[in-house]
Amino acid sequence: SGDPLIYESYWEERGDESHSFSVPLHQSLSYFSENRGGICWFMEPELESQIRKLHHVVGNAAVEGKHIVVGTGSSQLILAALHALSVSIDASDPVSVVAAAPYYSSYPEMAGFLRSSLFEWGGDAVEFEGNGGPYIEIVTSPNNPDGATREAAVANEGGKRGGGMIVHDLAYYWPQYTAITAALDHDIMLFAASKCSGHAGSRIGWAVVRDEETARKMVKFIEISTIGVSKEAQLRAADILQIISLTCSHDNNDDDDAAAFFQRHHSLMAQRWKKLRQILLKDSNLFHITKFPIRYCNF
Amino acid sequence: SGDPLIYESYWEERGDESHSFSVPLHQSLSYFSENRGGICWFMEPELESQIRKLHHVVGNAAVEGKHIVVGTGSSQLILAALHALSVSIDASDPVSVVAAAPYYSSYPEMAGFLRSSLFEWGGDAVEFEGNGGPYIEIVTSPNNPDGATREAAVANEGGKRGGGMIVHDLAYYWPQYTAITAALDHDIMLFAASKCSGHAGSRIGWAVVRDEETARKMVKFIEISTIGVSKEAQLRAADILQIISLTCSHDNNDDDDAAAFFQRHHSLMAQRWKKLRQILLKDSNLFHITKFPIRYCNF
Repeated sequence: SGDPLIYESYWEERGDESHSFSVPLHQSLSYFSENRGGICWFMEPELESQIRKLHHVVGNAAVEGKHIVVGTGSSQLILAALHALSVSIDASDPVSVVAAAPYYSSYPEMAGFLRSSLFEWGGDAVEFEGNGGPYIEIVTSPNNPDGATREAAVANEGGKRGGGMIVHDLAYYWPQYTAITAALDHDIMLFAASKCSGHAGSRIGWAVVRDEETARKMVKFIEISTIGVSKEAQLRAADILQIISLTCSHDNNDDDDAAAFFQRHHSLMAQRWKKLRQILLKDSNLFHITKFPIRYCNF
Repeated sequence: SGDPLIYESYWEERGDESHSFSVPLHQSLSYFSENRGGICWFMEPELESQIRKLHHVVGNAAVEGKHIVVGTGSSQLILAALHALSVSIDASDPVSVVAAAPYYSSYPEMAGFLRSSLFEWGGDAVEFEGNGGPYIEIVTSPNNPDGATREAAVANEGGKRGGGMIVHDLAYYWPQYTAITAALDHDIMLFAASKCSGHAGSRIGWAVVRDEETARKMVKFIEISTIGVSKEAQLRAADILQIISLTCSHDNNDDDDAAAFFQRHHSLMAQRWKKLRQILLKDSNLFHITKFPIRYCNF
């Protein structure tokens, strides 16, 4: 998870356009949001609405009929998902958490540091044999660190094969990083402002969750851990996602191509990869460059 | 933990005075703060400085030479403290977490829900016998729910008696709730914006920690759980604490007594207690009203 300062100049330029986020002193005193009757009782309705809109505009995730759960960054949501899935099973042994190597370097620490009797790190999903009992696979696609598009290595959605459950970490499934080939439709899909817009400091992530009971359990985890998620961060994230959605409309892009958020950062990423390849190819014995199949982006 | 809407009208009035918190689009993109070389690498320096200033002005906690750790509300800091203290001991059995009854209703759930092998809920501190092994006592003073001023029931600071360690939850140790009789000087003291200023929605709490290694372990817990704390919430909390500090100066109070934050809310709380007592005294067989000793506030 590199620091997303690549986005800084874009947001600095946009700052001129009278976009400035402000909160009056008496706002957000409550633990609750206006959504207090909903499953995610601390989520700002404006953020939920902008999350749904952006997925609709980009076409990277099927959100209709699913529940949105906001978290303090996607790291809290990963823990919330591991907790929700494993507490439902209530097995005598901790549920193994696996991911196909190479995996995000923090997963083992995240699965292990609480020393929970509910789940524990189980290593490389490809090598995982298990004991026929339940397990959770984290599928990161595009993958951190290598950018590969991935599907589950061992688990089948819905746990039909040996009790496998899947958490899809889709933090990088945005047009600046990869081709958006389909609106993904998995049980638990995680996204984060840090990778979408670059606002890592806000600590805003969200989960798109099919099953209501799982969503409720994830909300409970966040309630006990932090009694919800900062309202200021949620309101600002709503603002920023709205700006991004607006730059995606064709009218805006015709006017000012530099303002189109995803196009501009896709180009930046492409330039960086090109430079990196040139450096790496100078000594091809030291580095191996994975060849990815060419895919066409529907966005 | 009632919702702190009692503070809403105060902040609404103050909002007229051109106090409005805003964040430009390109600010706080990073996971790190300007304090990135410090122990609490995600804490905004402005927030730390306002926290230290307010404790100095109010005189409720000795902060000189101690470390400040910011958390996503004090609930995250309680978990961070339990984790930091128990992981240091690395006992074969989970460390018992106790509190003298009546205690904050969420403590048992917080100590138990992670199903950590590091710590577990141990019940009423007064009844606690233990096995001579290490344990943690949470001392809440003034106490939630009954407002009593408290000291440790079983543990001695520094763990000299049977390995007892103490976490002081001082969320209500502010002049609107109780007499500030001394600047407390404990090993781990927890505070929260929700109870100090009323901004529960921001999810900002802070710990004042004597031991550097404990502070580092608490920071590590927050890093793994949520990779830090929302920058927007921190910056707004810094603003609000600064406003409160300013209303404490005698110059300001002479000008406009209604603007003095602690005095105004102390009066409000006193009125509410008076009403409540009148209602309760109508049927003194149903309710028992604790008589607190009269103490003089140095603030």
